[in-house]
This record gives sequence, structure tokens and C-alpha cells, in this order.
Amino acid sequence: MIARHFRRPARDAGVVLGVGDDCTLLAPTPGQQLAVSVDTSVAGVHFPGEAPPSTVGHRALAVSLSDLAAMGARPRWCLMSLTLAEADDAWLADFAAGFHGLCESAGISLVGGDVTRGQLAIGVTVHGEVAPDEALRRDGARPGDLLAVTGSLGGAHGGLRAWQAGERDLAHPLLRAYLLPQPRLAAGLALRGLASAAIDLSDGLLADLGHLLEASGLGATLDPEALPLGEGLVDALGPEAACQAALSGGDDYELLLAIPAECLDEARRRLAELALPLTVIGRCEAAPGLRGVASGDAGGWQHFPGGRK
Amino acid sequence: MIARHFRRPARDAGVVLGVGDDCTLLAPTPGQQLAVSVDTSVAGVHFPGEAPPSTVGHRALAVSLSDLAAMGARPRWCLMSLTLAEADDAWLADFAAGFHGLCESAGISLVGGDVTRGQLAIGVTVHGEVAPDEALRRDGARPGDLLAVTGSLGGAHGGLRAWQAGERDLAHPLLRAYLLPQPRLAAGLALRGLASAAIDLSDGLLADLGHLLEASGLGATLDPEALPLGEGLVDALGPEAACQAALSGGDDYELLLAIPAECLDEARRRLAELALPLTVIGRCEAAPGLRGVASGDAGGWQHFPGGRK
Repeated sequence: MIARHFRRPARDAGVVLGVGDDCTLLAPTPGQQLAVSVDTSVAGVHFPGEAPPSTVGHRALAVSLSDLAAMGARPRWCLMSLTLAEADDAWLADFAAGFHGLCESAGISLVGGDVTRGQLAIGVTVHGEVAPDEALRRDGARPGDLLAVTGSLGGAHGGLRAWQAGERDLAHPLLRAYLLPQPRLAAGLALRGLASAAIDLSDGLLADLGHLLEASGLGATLDPEALPLGEGLVDALGPEAACQAALSGGDDYELLLAIPAECLDEARRRLAELALPLTVIGRCEAAPGLRGVASGDAGGWQHFPGGRK
Repeated sequence: MIARHFRRPARDAGVVLGVGDDCTLLAPTPGQQLAVSVDTSVAGVHFPGEAPPSTVGHRALAVSLSDLAAMGARPRWCLMSLTLAEADDAWLADFAAGFHGLCESAGISLVGGDVTRGQLAIGVTVHGEVAPDEALRRDGARPGDLLAVTGSLGGAHGGLRAWQAGERDLAHPLLRAYLLPQPRLAAGLALRGLASAAIDLSDGLLADLGHLLEASGLGATLDPEALPLGEGLVDALGPEAACQAALSGGDDYELLLAIPAECLDEARRRLAELALPLTVIGRCEAAPGLRGVASGDAGGWQHFPGGRK
């Protein structure tokens, strides 16, 4: 059953030996560095256990791919650890369709994994490649660099609220933002050589901005008025809660970037080709601390209430 | 807390950027292939949840390293996905000691991971390196090749029985075999160029032999009298059950090899340097099927009764 749902012929020339031996054998591209990350999504903690299986498959891969996007790495290979309470064929088929659909569009090959029994959880290890010194790191921001975000913010939080209120239509833009996040892989690749630092937004803007500033040894001033809010977010939550969702809601999987002012136009031009807006929301400063937002705004983001992060 | 228990300075020159960014950046050795595998160990399914935490950490890494051993790959880097019901500092310290202890002796660096809340489970992705065409695969066995195993068999099954009977002394050889398996990394490296095929014994000899024979398109005759039984196994279980444990008990993490007869002496010489016996237990044959054992002997191995595999 596993073989039926997950084995696909590897069309990747880098796969020397695919699924079916003790290990997969891969041939890394000479001269490239390997970017590796793992993320585990647990039902009831990171996503609702009753979410449509195709969105569970998509989302579990998306959150890991988002880390490759934030490094400016080209996706190559992934492995999946699937823990299941029971093997339901229809559930697995739909789950696999969501997972493979994103594999396809992201250009990554599933090359290994395991399936075990237990509480529903999906761990995905992703491998990407990036040329030496081209990776977008967290620690490269300089005083004066602009802070900018791709796409829009707060939509995933709005989608979580919509899910909790009973919304189930995946055409709903906020629900879509929450259950079917789009990792910004092409944006990450396009911003190599322009952005001085990058991080993906999984824990919420304030929390992740804090990580970037800490790694770079900087402070910043934010302009909350400038935050690009998710489609329909103000209508759904009201202006104040919408802004709060953009600041502290997690799971948006957009990129937060530090960009030297002189590179902004070129960065916007490149992202416009991807139909992706890039919005300046603040500026890095040498003085530590965060200015422009009320001090109580930063709070931990709980991916799915009921569980703990 | 996580940082305190798991971050160690990377002494590996291949780690360009360690834990703390969106991805780890690694520099693969030019000209080498990458052997990758992931295994998830779930409490109550693969190991007793009440096992000493250091053995849980050791064992979770050991089962993944065993896959590198079976490929003849040199361990380089691993990532850990840790799912925990609650963060108990003393438990984590002991768990980390077991994990890092084996990292150290195996020469592998922990370069990333994540921690989530949920039922206790540990997923470990391992990366090793092997020169092109040197990997030990499952599909290279030829008719006439001898079948041989490293170390001894059935010990883990005996250890599981001892655990269930209340034995808690880790000096007990059978309990030790079950909770602290030693991945045969040095043996796998030593057997490159000699063995025609290899697989590690996780599901039990008969099941894993079946995988090797299927991949190689062969059958075999086994000599059950020749099976090297774990220390104290006959005393604990009696001769018949001991033989059955060696055939069908899993979790031994020894290597099963196919070796051309003319390479046996050299293979034994190399393993003798590692103080590891190599025992011939049968022979590969062109005719499909398995001879020498009763047909009812092959059964699925349940890693830890109470759970499901």
C-alpha cells in the first residue's frame, strides 16, 4: 500500500539508487553546498487532524520547503517519516496526492522515508543545493537595510479562525492561506545576491524578526501601518485584530528579508516577474530593540490551539 | 533547554553553517555519493516508553546508523525530529547523553532537527558518504554466494522477553542487545569490495533475507544449525525458541551478507580485526524460494508488543 501511494519513478539524475535499499544513494552537484532541514507536523498541534488529507500532505512538505526558500536553495530531494494511527487507503491516496503535487511544482523528488504506527505526524527532511557564499542567512543584515516581506501577512491566522468557525471551502482565501501555504522558493532564488539576510515566517513576524535581528546583532523600527494584510483579513477580523494577526500570527510562510536600500528596485523587479509583491515594513538599526510596535505585541504563536507548540 | 541539551560545537569541517539558521549548510566531499536514510522510533511501538532515556537516545540513532552500515557508507551528519509529551529536563539530559555518546563513537555530527509536542517519537535522518560503485546494495548477490551474518542473532528478542519479565540491569547481555544495539559501521566499511550484497537485520533474519533475495532475484538454502545465537539465549529461552528468535526475532541490527566463497577468508580476517565473528549460515541459489527452514517460520516481527509495527 505504501509503495502504491508513495513510490514514483525518480526522474532526477541525481538519484543513483532510489527507494528500496537500506539507504537512498544521491549524487550531489559538484561544487554546490547542501542545505538541509527537517520539520515535523503533528495533528492537533500544527494542523487540525480533520483537515482534508491533500492539504495535510501539501502543508507538511510546504513548511520544510519554506526553509529552503529562506536560504535561497534549489530543492532537490526529500524524505518523509509518516506516523499514522491507522492505514486508511482513501486518506493515504489523498494525502499522497497533496504531497506529490507540491513535489512536482517545487521540483523536489521524494527519495525515501518510513511509515510507523502512532499519533498522526509527518516529518519531512528536505535537501536543497546552493552555491558557496550564495545562501541567504539570518546573520547578514546591516544597519540601514530595509526590512521587507513577500506576499501578505496574517492570512494563516485568519484561516485558522475561519476553520474554527466551521469554514471548509478551500476556495476561501484565508483558509487557503492556512491550509495550502505556498513556499516562496522562486523568490528565495531570485533574491540571492540582493538580500543581506532572510528568514521564513513560521512563528509570526515579531518572533521571526527577533531571530533575524538577534543573529545579525541589530535592532529595528517597524511600521505596522505598512504591513501587507492577507486578502479578506480586515473584513474577517476587524482592523486591529488583522494587524495583530500580521504581527504575531504564524504559519504565513512568507519571507522576511533585509535588503540594502539600493537593491530594493531590482528585488521588486525580480519578484514582479513572479507576480509577488515585496513590501517594505521597516528598517534595521544598530541600536538593539524593536521600535514602532507596542511592547506587548510579541507573543508565542500556537499553530493549532488545543495542542501546544 | 533544547539548545542546552543538543547543541554541540560542530567539529566537522563539512559543516559550513550549523544549527540556528533556516537550514544547515553542508559541504559534501567531492566525488562521493550521499547515502541517506530516515527511521522513526515510536514509544510503545518500537521500544518501551519506560526504557532508560539514554538507551532511547542511543537506540533511535543506532537503527538509522545501521542502514549506513548496511551500505558500507561512512557516517557524516544526522538530523533529529524529537516529539515529546512533556519537556522533562532530567529525561532530556539522559536521552541526549545516549544520543551524543553514539554520535561520538560513530563519528557522526548532529547538525539539525526540531522538537514538537506529542506522543514520544524520535525520527533520525542520517547522511553518510560512499565512493561511486562501492556501496553495498541488496541486489548484487549471485548464485553460489555464501550467506553470512556478523555477531550473533536473537539477542534482541531475548532482551525484549527479559524486559517484559522485569529485568532492568543493562549489564544483562540480552537486555543490552535489545536496548543498546551496536550498528556494524566498521564492518560495513571493511566489507566493501568483498560482499556482493548486504542488508541490516531489523525485521528478523527470514524477513530481511527475503528482501535481499528478492532484490537479487535468487533463492537460498539456510542451515538453522549454524545460526550464531546471542549470549545466554539458549539458557533463557531453551534451544527451540532460541533458534526461532534468531530466525524471526527482529532488532538485532547485525549485517546479513552475500559473499563469494573465495572472499570469505579475507572478510573474516578483516572482521577479526574488529573482534567481530562472521558466521556462514547458508548459500544463495538460482532457484527461487527458501530451503532448510520450516515454511511456517517466517513471521512478522513486532518490535514491541502492545504497539503495532
